Amino acid sequence: MDTLNFKTIRYNSAEAEILDSFDAQTAGTDGFVRWVDIGSIADRDGIERLGEALGIHRLIVEDILNPNQMVKLDHYDDCLFLVLKMIDYDNETCSINTEHVSLVLKKGVVVSIAENSGDIFRRVREKITQARDNVLRQGADYLCYELLDTVVDHYFEVIDQLGDATDSIEEELIADPVKSTLQRIYFVKRELMYLRKSVYPLRELIGGLVNSDSALLSQEIRIYLHDVYDHLIQIVDSIETYQDILSNMLDTYLSSISNRTNDTMKILTIISTIFIPLTFLAGIYGMNFKNIPELSLPYGYLVFWVISAVIVVLMILFFHKKKWF
Amino acid sequence: MDTLNFKTIRYNSAEAEILDSFDAQTAGTDGFVRWVDIGSIADRDGIERLGEALGIHRLIVEDILNPNQMVKLDHYDDCLFLVLKMIDYDNETCSINTEHVSLVLKKGVVVSIAENSGDIFRRVREKITQARDNVLRQGADYLCYELLDTVVDHYFEVIDQLGDATDSIEEELIADPVKSTLQRIYFVKRELMYLRKSVYPLRELIGGLVNSDSALLSQEIRIYLHDVYDHLIQIVDSIETYQDILSNMLDTYLSSISNRTNDTMKILTIISTIFIPLTFLAGIYGMNFKNIPELSLPYGYLVFWVISAVIVVLMILFFHKKKWF
Amino acid sequence: MDTLNFKTIRYNSAEAEILDSFDAQTAGTDGFVRWVDIGSIADRDGIERLGEALGIHRLIVEDILNPNQMVKLDHYDDCLFLVLKMIDYDNETCSINTEHVSLVLKKGVVVSIAENSGDIFRRVREKITQARDNVLRQGADYLCYELLDTVVDHYFEVIDQLGDATDSIEEELIADPVKSTLQRIYFVKRELMYLRKSVYPLRELIGGLVNSDSALLSQEIRIYLHDVYDHLIQIVDSIETYQDILSNMLDTYLSSISNRTNDTMKILTIISTIFIPLTFLAGIYGMNFKNIPELSLPYGYLVFWVISAVIVVLMILFFHKKKWF
Amino acid sequence: MDTLNFKTIRYNSAEAEILDSFDAQTAGTDGFVRWVDIGSIADRDGIERLGEALGIHRLIVEDILNPNQMVKLDHYDDCLFLVLKMIDYDNETCSINTEHVSLVLKKGVVVSIAENSGDIFRRVREKITQARDNVLRQGADYLCYELLDTVVDHYFEVIDQLGDATDSIEEELIADPVKSTLQRIYFVKRELMYLRKSVYPLRELIGGLVNSDSALLSQEIRIYLHDVYDHLIQIVDSIETYQDILSNMLDTYLSSISNRTNDTMKILTIISTIFIPLTFLAGIYGMNFKNIPELSLPYGYLVFWVISAVIVVLMILFFHKKKWF
Amino acid sequence: MDTLNFKTIRYNSAEAEILDSFDAQTAGTDGFVRWVDIGSIADRDGIERLGEALGIHRLIVEDILNPNQMVKLDHYDDCLFLVLKMIDYDNETCSINTEHVSLVLKKGVVVSIAENSGDIFRRVREKITQARDNVLRQGADYLCYELLDTVVDHYFEVIDQLGDATDSIEEELIADPVKSTLQRIYFVKRELMYLRKSVYPLRELIGGLVNSDSALLSQEIRIYLHDVYDHLIQIVDSIETYQDILSNMLDTYLSSISNRTNDTMKILTIISTIFIPLTFLAGIYGMNFKNIPELSLPYGYLVFWVISAVIVVLMILFFHKKKWF
Repeated sequence: MDTLNFKTIRYNSAEAEILDSFDAQTAGTDGFVRWVDIGSIADRDGIERLGEALGIHRLIVEDILNPNQMVKLDHYDDCLFLVLKMIDYDNETCSINTEHVSLVLKKGVVVSIAENSGDIFRRVREKITQARDNVLRQGADYLCYELLDTVVDHYFEVIDQLGDATDSIEEELIADPVKSTLQRIYFVKRELMYLRKSVYPLRELIGGLVNSDSALLSQEIRIYLHDVYDHLIQIVDSIETYQDILSNMLDTYLSSISNRTNDTMKILTIISTIFIPLTFLAGIYGMNFKNIPELSLPYGYLVFWVISAVIVVLMILFFHKKKWF
Repeated sequence: MDTLNFKTIRYNSAEAEILDSFDAQTAGTDGFVRWVDIGSIADRDGIERLGEALGIHRLIVEDILNPNQMVKLDHYDDCLFLVLKMIDYDNETCSINTEHVSLVLKKGVVVSIAENSGDIFRRVREKITQARDNVLRQGADYLCYELLDTVVDHYFEVIDQLGDATDSIEEELIADPVKSTLQRIYFVKRELMYLRKSVYPLRELIGGLVNSDSALLSQEIRIYLHDVYDHLIQIVDSIETYQDILSNMLDTYLSSISNRTNDTMKILTIISTIFIPLTFLAGIYGMNFKNIPELSLPYGYLVFWVISAVIVVLMILFFHKKKWF
Repeated sequence: MDTLNFKTIRYNSAEAEILDSFDAQTAGTDGFVRWVDIGSIADRDGIERLGEALGIHRLIVEDILNPNQMVKLDHYDDCLFLVLKMIDYDNETCSINTEHVSLVLKKGVVVSIAENSGDIFRRVREKITQARDNVLRQGADYLCYELLDTVVDHYFEVIDQLGDATDSIEEELIADPVKSTLQRIYFVKRELMYLRKSVYPLRELIGGLVNSDSALLSQEIRIYLHDVYDHLIQIVDSIETYQDILSNMLDTYLSSISNRTNDTMKILTIISTIFIPLTFLAGIYGMNFKNIPELSLPYGYLVFWVISAVIVVLMILFFHKKKWF
Repeated sequence: MDTLNFKTIRYNSAEAEILDSFDAQTAGTDGFVRWVDIGSIADRDGIERLGEALGIHRLIVEDILNPNQMVKLDHYDDCLFLVLKMIDYDNETCSINTEHVSLVLKKGVVVSIAENSGDIFRRVREKITQARDNVLRQGADYLCYELLDTVVDHYFEVIDQLGDATDSIEEELIADPVKSTLQRIYFVKRELMYLRKSVYPLRELIGGLVNSDSALLSQEIRIYLHDVYDHLIQIVDSIETYQDILSNMLDTYLSSISNRTNDTMKILTIISTIFIPLTFLAGIYGMNFKNIPELSLPYGYLVFWVISAVIVVLMILFFHKKKWF
Repeated sequence: MDTLNFKTIRYNSAEAEILDSFDAQTAGTDGFVRWVDIGSIADRDGIERLGEALGIHRLIVEDILNPNQMVKLDHYDDCLFLVLKMIDYDNETCSINTEHVSLVLKKGVVVSIAENSGDIFRRVREKITQARDNVLRQGADYLCYELLDTVVDHYFEVIDQLGDATDSIEEELIADPVKSTLQRIYFVKRELMYLRKSVYPLRELIGGLVNSDSALLSQEIRIYLHDVYDHLIQIVDSIETYQDILSNMLDTYLSSISNRTNDTMKILTIISTIFIPLTFLAGIYGMNFKNIPELSLPYGYLVFWVISAVIVVLMILFFHKKKWF
């Protein structure tokens, strides 16, 4: 039962300090809240030993170390275990990066393990060390809420960026749809699809927390969790709205392209329909038959031009009647 | 506990008067109904002090001041809190403006806070000051109903305007679909989508009010609220009907454009198919071969025209058989 | 409490007679069933006075007089109030006319108010006056069932006509889809949409009646109402089947048009591909270069024709291989 | 209470015989199971008298005689009444024929009335008369199950044939979609739609039988009925799978046709783009201007051919770069 | 009650051995777990005798021998019977092979019967014979879990391969969609459809096991089964995601092809529109009219070229303005 070399933040309502190791034995018994924030799952041995020290079930530790683990909430008698998906929007590749974050909540202890995200909970740590927002006065469950809130806030940011992308595609679609418009619609649709797939279980998870009868969550914290739940409903709502809009766009795009093909066809048809008969006429009088009487007429050439002009005018009237101009 | 500088309407079954300030202490105890109608959330301090004076939870005040707040109904023991979306159709941009309206109902007190809509509840105020429609004889819950009804009536107006737009698009679609028809379908579809997204939660909210067991709502008022609920069901119904119609239109539009492209193609094909072989024939007799016997035939030129005429007739018969005319 | 000048049919199991006025005071107390059948809502005053005389709630009277009233069932202690939509198919405009019919059922009294439909319940009246089908032996609830049944039968007629329209469109689609086929699909789809929107709530309404615990409906009448309910389920079923068929048709239509465009393209391509190279060849030997050796060949012209024939044959083989013939 | 002239099979665990008449009075009291199998609803009087003799409700008899009756299960105290749809696939017209079969189950008596199907239950009759499969040892409820099973087996056959049709359409679609492919997709889709509409209520009906508390069905027979229910679930599953596949095919077909149009366009474009400039060039040197210096060049004609060849090669390279070859 | 010639693995927490026959009488009474693993349903007689020896219901044996049996879970008092679908992805034909696997769980006995899959449970057998993973210490229910897990793992492999196929199709779609892209989309969509149809009932089945109150399943094993259930949810999720992506791709593909047709059209239109008027002009001056004054102009030919160049430039400007370049 050695002490473990994980940076630990220890605080109570009066003070907060950062320790270099985590003492599992005294944790939860001395009135302090301890937060072990691990930024990578590379140290598999350390995490396994930490799990043992805290008496965490082997299956939980396996889930923590499995980067493909689904979003999940497990209730144990003295422990809540959550797996979340943290998302990040990469503006350059227009794609969403998903990362796997595990939270363990025990009496007086919160352990957060991110897959490899560096320092996503920096702002929460600062709140504690700078004693802001009354975090110190709250218990471990409130800390857990703060971490959840941080994760959900990332969803908001991503959905905002996808919303901006959708708006810019719409402008393009209305003004002048080009080929890349199609690709952009496709990509944003796909990202929204993935996003929805990770938000849905998260919403269920938070809903499960709100309604859970775990003794680790105070009544007051459920109000805060309900707030997070409302945010997730709003996110799901936005995703579905953007998806509907993009489907609508794709249908409209297809019609736009058909419209454009029709326009292209019209130009070709107008030019062809005007000049092909004229060219035939010119071909006639380029023939070498012995006796083509028109060729010897004094005003033959002039008459040819007059006839040509009449044909052109008739054609133009025809297309005008068809409202092609 | 100073008095607050918000215009307040105070009435009982006998009289109604407009006061320049709101006295939170006597409110709800003297048999008067007090209505504080705030037309903007700019005065954040004032609203926060009002909240304190009325003993409203801090979270409610935050929601009131947050312009992105979702539609929401919160039950408290002595207070009902509602966030609504007020909508307005802007005919020029063909878009819907949404605005955030909060209602707080306490015993004998109604507070309404609009985001920035000027004076949306003017008609209700006039009803009170002119003592029309028995409003005076009713309690604070009836006033709340009147405000809700005003908001829902706006939805009716907007849905009517979108319905008119749909009808005019349909006429265009049947008579002669042009490119802007597509854009109009797209825009109205999008607006209906947004509209549905805000009506759905509103319907849930009113349904929640009808079934709520809050002591602030009398039995009689629930009948009125049920009426509002029926209106919202009717609105949802209309929205879904228009959406189905517009989807139907978009499918039809695409087919129309394809039809039109086919028509364009037919013209081109008819002209080309008739004249290209003739031009070839004319090209033949424009060749400079030494010995082209036809050229010296006495009626060669005439025969050429006869052959050409036969080709034209055959082509026309062919297209006639294909029912292109 | 004057008597009211509405034609009233009064009957018991022995006799039936038509009265010129309705005596609200004795109604429901003398063992007679009284039916007041009003064919228009133009006489607003009369209907309002009738409502008062029968002790009908003001809100019901308002709904009766409101032509936009939704389908609706209201239970009161001594009164059932139904608003129905009567539909009629206008063959000429291919559109459905909807009309608003209200029924009020009280002990021994049925009031039916049609919006402006002349005499839709003639057949029911004849049944009573001619003492057919045992109507006389039944109570006011059975009369109410007869009226409902009459309304629902109209739905059957309309759905039959739309079904016929669908079948005739299908024949057209398979044989030879033309532009008007698209419009017909569009119109019938739209009408079915409207129809479904009015049948759904009607089904709910009748279902509500079947399961209602109102003392105004005898146990036996519920079996008859269940029969009406079954009919409505069958109507909804038919509507959805026709809608699916029409959607299927629209998809098929679009493919048909694409097919047809492709056929048009093929004709153009075959003609162009055969004659454009030949025309070029003819153009070659129409050039005025000093020394074109082929022109002086003794069989030059013949060779030209041979080459042309070979090109044509090759092209035809090419298109044959592509299965264009 | 005369005996009725319907062929009746009477059996108990020991023996089975075919009688020429049905004696309603002794039926159900002497330990025999009696099966009246009527192959047509033409003899309306006979069926009505049979109904009276068995004490069947008038409404049931009406449903039996109504060829448009929906699928339906009615529980009465001493009687179960079922209306089924028997289907048959007509290979020639590729359409499904539906026929209406009614079953009445009373204590010791089963009456089956087919609309006009000749002898659909022949195999069941043979099982009884040949004393196969222990049918004799079972009661009237087991006979009822055998009849239901026969009807459901027909669904399996039809769904198999539609499945074969789907597979053959798929082959055609992948290999070489032609116009008739579209029609075949359309027809099979439509038939599946009708099929689903008749299987859904049948599934509900059998489910209702399994869970019914009727004393006419023994506990053991419910296991057999559950088996029929499982079959119907499997049929519904297959129908939905084939429907999805056909929708997928229709989408793919549309894309195939677009692809094909594009291919047609490419041929036209290649030929036109190569020869139209060349024809212009030939046209240049067919002009009769006095002073066209090229015409007098000694190698003018040769140079013309070289230039033409260069143009052709450039065009081919261009199309090659575009991957049209 | 002879012994049966099926290879049987017999083990307890201490040892494991492979026997050549299965002794049904001692099975389940001596503290050993016995596993009869049958790799084919060819030996129908043997399987029937095994069923009799174990006292398995005749219907179960029939289901085991029916290769078209659906996924199914049957609870009996002393026996659990499961039918599963084992799937395999054949990379060459890009199709999924389904095979039917039955499991029978009795006290101390597990019988697994595969349709014809050779040796799918080899890894489980090795675990037992090599005494790995504590399998020996667990009961027959754990063995059953191991077999289920093996089957579900195959689904994961197949879904991974379909996911890879989807990704490679996506690359093709974005880079350069060709005709085979359409076929690949079609095939993967169809396979996913079939896959979903077999996963859905499997998920229900495992869910039923988790919640079953059978005495054959220990409380601990339910945790493991829940894990399998979670995997199936994840599989269903992946299938639906891929289906959505492929639908999205098909829509995008259609738009891509339309885009491409439009591009083809543009090339044709540009070439035609530039050269057709020029060819007409050349045709003019190839005519043989006696008096065409331009022909005798000293710089006629030069002027002709200048005019031609002007036409070309104007056309190019026109297409440039239309953003075709």
